Amino acid sequence: MTLVTLGPEGTYSELAAKEWDSSEDIVLKSSPRKVVDAVGRGFFGILPIENSIQGTVVRTVDLLRTNDIEICGELILEINHCLIGSGKKEIKTVVSHPQALAQSREFINQKFPNAEVQAAESTANAVKKAQNNEKMVAVAPRHAAQKYGLKILYENIQDVEDNQTRFIVLGENDHEPSGNDKTSLIFYVENNPGSLYNCLGAFAKNNVNLTKLESRPSREKLGDYYFYIDFEGHRRDNKVKKAIDELKQKAREVKLLGSYPKRQEPSP
Amino acid sequence: MTLVTLGPEGTYSELAAKEWDSSEDIVLKSSPRKVVDAVGRGFFGILPIENSIQGTVVRTVDLLRTNDIEICGELILEINHCLIGSGKKEIKTVVSHPQALAQSREFINQKFPNAEVQAAESTANAVKKAQNNEKMVAVAPRHAAQKYGLKILYENIQDVEDNQTRFIVLGENDHEPSGNDKTSLIFYVENNPGSLYNCLGAFAKNNVNLTKLESRPSREKLGDYYFYIDFEGHRRDNKVKKAIDELKQKAREVKLLGSYPKRQEPSP
Repeated sequence: MTLVTLGPEGTYSELAAKEWDSSEDIVLKSSPRKVVDAVGRGFFGILPIENSIQGTVVRTVDLLRTNDIEICGELILEINHCLIGSGKKEIKTVVSHPQALAQSREFINQKFPNAEVQAAESTANAVKKAQNNEKMVAVAPRHAAQKYGLKILYENIQDVEDNQTRFIVLGENDHEPSGNDKTSLIFYVENNPGSLYNCLGAFAKNNVNLTKLESRPSREKLGDYYFYIDFEGHRRDNKVKKAIDELKQKAREVKLLGSYPKRQEPSP
Repeated sequence: MTLVTLGPEGTYSELAAKEWDSSEDIVLKSSPRKVVDAVGRGFFGILPIENSIQGTVVRTVDLLRTNDIEICGELILEINHCLIGSGKKEIKTVVSHPQALAQSREFINQKFPNAEVQAAESTANAVKKAQNNEKMVAVAPRHAAQKYGLKILYENIQDVEDNQTRFIVLGENDHEPSGNDKTSLIFYVENNPGSLYNCLGAFAKNNVNLTKLESRPSREKLGDYYFYIDFEGHRRDNKVKKAIDELKQKAREVKLLGSYPKRQEPSP
């Protein structure tokens, strides 16, 4: 099965695709929209859904909400920023995506107080720039060094430890029960006191444990919300079935996004 | 009262500070941490908390969680990306913060299919670069054009309409009741089926309407969550008081972030 994810070569998304299945072809696209379109044509897609520092990737949730695709897997990637360069000359410029720069600011300020800090469109583009300039170093994932023939000068340079990104695997169908599963869905409620409470009652009464809940404005009507939730169990489990059936009676609309094997978070 | 917010000059945060109170001094800091530290020294702070496309600004929520500051106001800013440049020469390069570039990608591809796209650390830094190069244009808020002596070549170039950012005003105390208020708080729950449901019951039973709810890993213990919520009413209102008292009996910990006058969202 060919995997489609976000490029260019050297992104964390490409790394996630390799971790998921290193034996398969990986096709790199320039936007989440293009990844989702490819899933519709029979490929499997991989997109980031949540980062422990930056929070939910809203763009991915919105694409799940509006497209006929399902989640068939998840994986969690430890984000390990490295300083990558030629190692040949004095470092004059540090380049990366602004998020990676922000996450490594203390390290950069301490080690290279006089270096110019420059933004790039992606961590992979930053490494490409460093490839062409021996006085420039990039903040990027470790595998990007090898790909572009550069050296890892420092590892784990992010200021905040415990930086993880959760990716979801997208297909035309979700996953068979594995015995340790999660299910994701989106539901819409009216903006009334107690309406969310009523909806969550469907899960509480059936002893189903929520692992993530997020509200988002529906952008259809002022003050109208939808909720994205993850919970433990497979949609074919009895108690999960009951909970979803009850939710359907209480919410304005329910969109099931799929059930899939649960990955354990690395310990904090 | 001096306002402290995120710089450099020309950011949307600076614009939010001016909208909040154009008669006061504005001090610009290089990080959210520094804004919060200034609030502790008697200034008022302004930070983004939520964008309609990008979602919650997790960094701001985490600072609220771990610092002794209160929310005393909110304001909502329409994000209107403009194309800003000299207007004198053919456009060879489009420069901006990657988020602003991503939000304007369709426009740029259609109008300037051959232009090089370049990343900058902020929209304000992008305009500075365009100031020094007549063949370069920046994607940035309209007031940045005037500040740097450049022209607005196109307005409202973002691909998605209805792009708003909500900012909160931070002080050492929250706001007196105004008759149309909101309250924000953070609470921690054990990771058990029904624990969140029980907590939300405190609001439902007292007829208090939630306007935002988001779960975040507490990062203290695996599977341990906290919730950030906004709801209608002032903490001194009778039914809000009751709801908070009941919540305190059900949640492991409750941190009140303050009550403040509610701003109406612009119509979608």
